[in-house]
Amino acid sequence: MDTLIRLEATVTQRLSADPGSSYVASLTAKGLPAIAKKLGEEAVETVIAALSGSEEELVGEAADVLFHLTVLLAAKGVSLDQVMAELDRREGTSGLDEKANRNR
Amino acid sequence: MDTLIRLEATVTQRLSADPGSSYVASLTAKGLPAIAKKLGEEAVETVIAALSGSEEELVGEAADVLFHLTVLLAAKGVSLDQVMAELDRREGTSGLDEKANRNR
Amino acid sequence: MDTLIRLEATVTQRLSADPGSSYVASLTAKGLPAIAKKLGEEAVETVIAALSGSEEELVGEAADVLFHLTVLLAAKGVSLDQVMAELDRREGTSGLDEKANRNR
Amino acid sequence: MDTLIRLEATVTQRLSADPGSSYVASLTAKGLPAIAKKLGEEAVETVIAALSGSEEELVGEAADVLFHLTVLLAAKGVSLDQVMAELDRREGTSGLDEKANRNR
Repeated sequence: MDTLIRLEATVTQRLSADPGSSYVASLTAKGLPAIAKKLGEEAVETVIAALSGSEEELVGEAADVLFHLTVLLAAKGVSLDQVMAELDRREGTSGLDEKANRNR
Repeated sequence: MDTLIRLEATVTQRLSADPGSSYVASLTAKGLPAIAKKLGEEAVETVIAALSGSEEELVGEAADVLFHLTVLLAAKGVSLDQVMAELDRREGTSGLDEKANRNR
Repeated sequence: MDTLIRLEATVTQRLSADPGSSYVASLTAKGLPAIAKKLGEEAVETVIAALSGSEEELVGEAADVLFHLTVLLAAKGVSLDQVMAELDRREGTSGLDEKANRNR
Repeated sequence: MDTLIRLEATVTQRLSADPGSSYVASLTAKGLPAIAKKLGEEAVETVIAALSGSEEELVGEAADVLFHLTVLLAAKGVSLDQVMAELDRREGTSGLDEKANRNR
């Protein structure tokens, strides 16, 4: 999972780069709604790939979701560590009663 | 990022457990469309949290996306490693030309 | 299609009603992000119903999309007439070249 | 709302036309997942336009949702009349208790 650590470092570095220099910089320059839109679209495509696509398509779309989630979080100044800490917190409290802890 | 490794192991173990025993087992018992639906919904909520929610809400929704993406992939027999390998592959090829490699 | 006209009238009337009096009033009281979230969720469910559900499910989810789109527009002060006028405008201009007019 | 009636007639007619002849024919030729994906994407864009866009953007995205919902239903052989009948049914039964009838 070092991949995500490297991805986050790369993304953070490119956030404020010249929009012409990378996809991340170009997307970020379009603003938060544009980044959020990409996350939503890639999630829809992941849903569709899971229901009617190949394994290769699912892997590709899942990668797109992780990539754009990382960009969105970085653009908002939220680290993946914060998200992992939240997952750990749930796992910790949910050892005995996972379901009660997840009410949605 | 050991969090995701542990999460995937836990999820995989619970996939075929008694539906009454955990949220993952209960969700999986409802079938793939139900899991996919949760991923789509959590992505929409992440989009909304990024645009109009608090940092705490964004962290929570992003955790929900990672959680349900992990469940969906596990239910399809796809490992997070495969997705990370795809992200690595893109990073590798995109070192020189990230943008050309990402055509959307 | 008088259905949509009646639906819009009912929804508009209930927007500012006592939250305990109707679903529309209750949803509106939660704020725009909550309404937008419902639209996004119902669209995801429509996608899933189209790919892996019954005709009855698809009809139900499509009705949910139209319902929540109507609520969202009403909450923003946008009328269905404005949306229909936009569709008419596209149809008018796209008689000869529908595709050029729709660049996505 | 004659707009939707005309739109549905146009869409139905173009469903099986030469893919090169219109956007609808081209999209339909790509298959149901491609149509469903467009609906999902336009719904995400409507959510974003409602939260952070202009009125003009919201009108445009809502039109995109109605357009692609119409294409998706037509591709599945479901008529808008069926969806309107479902909305009427809910309205009829929900006069006294709208909320109880809508459990999501």
